[in-house]
Amino acid sequence: MSGTFITFEGPEGAGKTSVLRAIVERLTPLLNDKLVLTREPGGQGSPVAEAIRDLVLNPNLPSMDAWTEALLYAASRRQHLVDTVLPALAEDKVVISDRYLDSSIAYQGGGRRLGVDAVTTINQFATEGVMPTATVYLDIRPEIGLQRIQEHRQDEINRLDVEALSFHKRVADAYHQLAAQSPERFLIINAEQDLATVISDTWTALMPILGIQE
Amino acid sequence: MSGTFITFEGPEGAGKTSVLRAIVERLTPLLNDKLVLTREPGGQGSPVAEAIRDLVLNPNLPSMDAWTEALLYAASRRQHLVDTVLPALAEDKVVISDRYLDSSIAYQGGGRRLGVDAVTTINQFATEGVMPTATVYLDIRPEIGLQRIQEHRQDEINRLDVEALSFHKRVADAYHQLAAQSPERFLIINAEQDLATVISDTWTALMPILGIQE
Repeated sequence: MSGTFITFEGPEGAGKTSVLRAIVERLTPLLNDKLVLTREPGGQGSPVAEAIRDLVLNPNLPSMDAWTEALLYAASRRQHLVDTVLPALAEDKVVISDRYLDSSIAYQGGGRRLGVDAVTTINQFATEGVMPTATVYLDIRPEIGLQRIQEHRQDEINRLDVEALSFHKRVADAYHQLAAQSPERFLIINAEQDLATVISDTWTALMPILGIQE
Repeated sequence: MSGTFITFEGPEGAGKTSVLRAIVERLTPLLNDKLVLTREPGGQGSPVAEAIRDLVLNPNLPSMDAWTEALLYAASRRQHLVDTVLPALAEDKVVISDRYLDSSIAYQGGGRRLGVDAVTTINQFATEGVMPTATVYLDIRPEIGLQRIQEHRQDEINRLDVEALSFHKRVADAYHQLAAQSPERFLIINAEQDLATVISDTWTALMPILGIQE
């Protein structure tokens, strides 16, 4: 693996989409076609992974068992890795993925209570040990993240009840556990600041990893 | 688990479909609505498992990585178990499934060389230890099974080359390993006999398990 593999992670309401978009806009003129932007589930350039994405997010299907969901995310990750991530890294590119392994461990392992160890085990077969060079973790307290979603998506207000908060606390706890296990990989950004500061902090943290000097 | 869970397994060309059909025809008047017939991947009464089946067997998608395939089969199995098999067993029914866990271990673990232990591990999360009461294994030497397919499906003649034979030998080896590990569960039927004898032997083997006296 000769390229650079960056993943973006964080709970709901952390502003991940906005920060990622701003970082990519700033990186594109510097990296040009060396930059590959992708996301999970699914993934740019992987029709099989995209088909799994469509299935796992299909609102017309009955709700699925948490283990089914975890196995589908792992299957999507495997194909995305084989089709998109590994070939790009072999060409010395910079791959930025919106979510990767840590999301499954936090959401299925923590949030859905399948257990961090169990979800990690399943994903060892999917990833065969391929881990990001660095992971941007947008850190925000679950209650603040949920409050932000509530303000922006008023139609989903009913879902943000007590149960949702405890789910998101379990997600955040699992993320923090992962960050504590791999401090050299996790770039923890305080996502409770204003958006411009979050973007600036993320940029500053990523620069040395990408070998960019300004 | 109070019902009876019977699975049918075997390599290509063993006549599984014909034997299963004959057994079900004979069982239906005896069991009536106590009998639930289903199959993997997918499964009767499980829209999510059926959607995974459609994906994994979709000929319009690019060929998928063997790990992706193994994880998809495990995801389908999980949902089929939760939606169909476990509720029927809880109602004391007789569930007959065309393929189950052993197929993944034989085809992905053996045939595709992912390893029997690795595929077993993935599926422990999918099945949580739910194993069949009995497994009808239609035993046939790979070269005989392939010869039978060759006779019946002349358009596929080119695929039945040396590589196909070694694949099917690995499948059969893995099945035999499973049968040796669980002799109390496997009903090994000599599927190289004429169809009527195979059906008759299967029926005789299943009767005591189903508590049927003739």
